Amino acid sequence: MLDEPVGWLSAVGGALNAIGIVAFAISGALLAVQKRMDLVGMAGLAVVTATGGGMLRDLLIGATPVAVLREWWMIGAALLGALAVFLLHRWMDKLDRPVLIFDAIGLGIFVVAGATKAVHHGVDPVGAAFVGMLTGIGGGILRDALANDIPAVFRRDSRLYLLPALLGSSAAATAEWMGWGHWAVLTGIALVVCALRIASELLD
Amino acid sequence: MLDEPVGWLSAVGGALNAIGIVAFAISGALLAVQKRMDLVGMAGLAVVTATGGGMLRDLLIGATPVAVLREWWMIGAALLGALAVFLLHRWMDKLDRPVLIFDAIGLGIFVVAGATKAVHHGVDPVGAAFVGMLTGIGGGILRDALANDIPAVFRRDSRLYLLPALLGSSAAATAEWMGWGHWAVLTGIALVVCALRIASELLD
Amino acid sequence: MLDEPVGWLSAVGGALNAIGIVAFAISGALLAVQKRMDLVGMAGLAVVTATGGGMLRDLLIGATPVAVLREWWMIGAALLGALAVFLLHRWMDKLDRPVLIFDAIGLGIFVVAGATKAVHHGVDPVGAAFVGMLTGIGGGILRDALANDIPAVFRRDSRLYLLPALLGSSAAATAEWMGWGHWAVLTGIALVVCALRIASELLD
Repeated sequence: MLDEPVGWLSAVGGALNAIGIVAFAISGALLAVQKRMDLVGMAGLAVVTATGGGMLRDLLIGATPVAVLREWWMIGAALLGALAVFLLHRWMDKLDRPVLIFDAIGLGIFVVAGATKAVHHGVDPVGAAFVGMLTGIGGGILRDALANDIPAVFRRDSRLYLLPALLGSSAAATAEWMGWGHWAVLTGIALVVCALRIASELLD
Repeated sequence: MLDEPVGWLSAVGGALNAIGIVAFAISGALLAVQKRMDLVGMAGLAVVTATGGGMLRDLLIGATPVAVLREWWMIGAALLGALAVFLLHRWMDKLDRPVLIFDAIGLGIFVVAGATKAVHHGVDPVGAAFVGMLTGIGGGILRDALANDIPAVFRRDSRLYLLPALLGSSAAATAEWMGWGHWAVLTGIALVVCALRIASELLD
Repeated sequence: MLDEPVGWLSAVGGALNAIGIVAFAISGALLAVQKRMDLVGMAGLAVVTATGGGMLRDLLIGATPVAVLREWWMIGAALLGALAVFLLHRWMDKLDRPVLIFDAIGLGIFVVAGATKAVHHGVDPVGAAFVGMLTGIGGGILRDALANDIPAVFRRDSRLYLLPALLGSSAAATAEWMGWGHWAVLTGIALVVCALRIASELLD
């Protein structure tokens, strides 16, 4: 993929990125409902969760102004996710499970997106794997901290969160670096991270 | 204003920035008194509150080294604010009201300063509104977190904090972008944000 | 030293930096043991403590991509520190004292490294002293926050933490700026900071 980054980034990458943003936004808005916040709190938590990991990634690799300031459809997509939760959450009785699933989807996609963007910015694979992991966990850490929950990575079961993220970001960084970063490979890695995260929680 | 940014930035902008820094420093030092911190704690909390929002703004738009490292009169102004509180706080019985008022002054000024600086760095108006809001709330979030208070934006009444900030930063970003960023317009926006914030708290 | 920065940075600076990283990593892994975290938690806390201050420094001065993404021996060194703690901690009964000592070693070294790196990036001495202080305390703040401890700088005895850091970073920034930044001078400053920090805690 290194010889035609624009194709990947603008097509499948853009679509995956949008799905990851909406998924994290939904997980943020659902947690806001659980914490009995109002509509403004839901919108705020949705935007922070959806954009926090990407902001951290862009700061660390020096891609400033950070992407969300230029591509503000991201804020719009996050607000749509919050609106969907606002309209639909009355029909759900328990919110733990949906928060977990949407968080896992966002984690898988953001870990891959963070690692590949870092490689495109000239970061070597080990550094890119580190950036990918932080991109994936950053939004969720901010979400949990703002909602006064102990972030998942700091809880006893942290290995079930950090290890899938680290495995996925290492795989994505290696694939992109070696020129194997086909959209199908990267999407597969995102799906595996997502599945590992959900499985580890359900089997616990 | 876009054709002569230096005039605005160096004159009224500089004066407003200094007032915002001192106001946030005072709010930080007053909270330190309320939390029974010593003089070092007061100075530290004053500096963090006064410079935190601007550091976040500069990191997000890529204006590094961040401004406070070059213009360190900001640290001096924050320390003067802390010193004033140290000398005068014995004559105040209740500190909630002064913390609120100085925080609102800082919020109004920093929201406008953040949005206009982002526009000058080539960020489009929507992104600049986002930066302005974060500039306004960043220092207060750090202050409250360091003093072990739940930050105001995370409390139940968060809409009374986020909405004035967002309205003000949107107005300032739009005005600056359209070339209407006269100092009187921007000062007016800062005053409205400050008034909305104080009114919403007093009427609650 | 200003006319031959590479010599200092690559030799004594590199060695001191490695010692600081391992010391902070050990303090992070020991705190993880105290908090009954597993091996993944120990590794994570070690890496964050060892690299957090340096990441903050590089973000503030605009040295991006941040150093840890290029020089990832730092992550390896932090993991070795965590491994040493994993293998050896059973032979220690109390962990408060070792955490304090390794934290003080890291503080002294990082304060000096942060201030001198900022001077080399063209930040003036006052700004560089501020950066040095934040470099020294940043990793420990992240460590304590992630382990759900109140960070040392926010506790009542905060002056015993902030003041040695600020004295050391001011001395190092001044020395480097004036061209007196010989390795022996800078190492001496790091030792004084470390000794002041340990003494203030033991005498309390």
